[in-house]
Amino acid sequence: MAKQFIVETSARHVHVTQQDLETLFGPGYELHPKKYLSQPGQFASEERVDVVGPKNPLKKVSILGPVRKATQIELSLTDARSIGVTAPVRESGDIAGSGACKLVGPAGEVEVAEGVIAAKRHIHMTPADAEEFGLKDKDVVSVKVDTDGRALTFGDVVVRVSEKFSLAMHIDTDESNAACAVNGTMGELIK
Amino acid sequence: MAKQFIVETSARHVHVTQQDLETLFGPGYELHPKKYLSQPGQFASEERVDVVGPKNPLKKVSILGPVRKATQIELSLTDARSIGVTAPVRESGDIAGSGACKLVGPAGEVEVAEGVIAAKRHIHMTPADAEEFGLKDKDVVSVKVDTDGRALTFGDVVVRVSEKFSLAMHIDTDESNAACAVNGTMGELIK
Repeated sequence: MAKQFIVETSARHVHVTQQDLETLFGPGYELHPKKYLSQPGQFASEERVDVVGPKNPLKKVSILGPVRKATQIELSLTDARSIGVTAPVRESGDIAGSGACKLVGPAGEVEVAEGVIAAKRHIHMTPADAEEFGLKDKDVVSVKVDTDGRALTFGDVVVRVSEKFSLAMHIDTDESNAACAVNGTMGELIK
Repeated sequence: MAKQFIVETSARHVHVTQQDLETLFGPGYELHPKKYLSQPGQFASEERVDVVGPKNPLKKVSILGPVRKATQIELSLTDARSIGVTAPVRESGDIAGSGACKLVGPAGEVEVAEGVIAAKRHIHMTPADAEEFGLKDKDVVSVKVDTDGRALTFGDVVVRVSEKFSLAMHIDTDESNAACAVNGTMGELIK
């Protein structure tokens, strides 16, 4: 049986520390969940910030919650070029030496010295999913997306396994457009 | 032997009729070649126009020459979404019922009722290339691009054969970013 899973498109977004959140929105501020996402506990918040580089800024970029230990800005490479910043392709959390930008909120600004990345495409899965697929954390696989007119096979897809995850592949907007992926597009594992 | 060819990224651009060129730049106007492209006789011109949709316009988009029989605007799906227009994935020239936009030049404006497309990825080749590859015009193939970190295989790649062409694959900026393609990236034919 073909091993399939949902392919979700992550539009540009920002993760913030509590400290940066308070600089941007004011002392004691907390994020307000707007929509819960496929990964348990993760949500798009009501809060938005401008992501500013040397060129035109990206306005009103969504903050995802909950707050994290490090501020991280996930852009597509199209986004990064449009504002004139560098965004290396990295796994979430691997931000050492990544791109710089400024975040602008209603109460203040944060200069981010490193934290701008283009997310490396990946599949979230539980240990039970991983066992079924015959995979383990950090494996690198290929995934076929059989859309109408722009079918393609993504190589260099990282497998991430945790009890906290739910089965879903995440790609950015460039990758989604390259495949003409839509809501409900499925991926098929190719080892 | 692996069958390889250069993979070139086509950024957003506009083709215009002589009539639309004169509306945009003035009576009797002619394009001024700035840089000749891989396809013989084709060039990026000095001239640029704004591509306007319901949302933010794309400023100073390059016009490619020579002039054509129909005005056509080639955007990435990211571009199209950013200005709020529709861009179906089509082969060049197949513009019936495609997207609408407005072009704004220094001397006037043109309302384009249809002509906005996202170019279907394709390989230009000569009849001699086609024979070597065992392909013919309009064949649909897959192409593997083995980049560092975002390797992928594009399906739904159209083969276009003409004496007027030179061997090169063309992808748009979304597709290029999805593969982390750079200047000099090669593609390998997979039938």
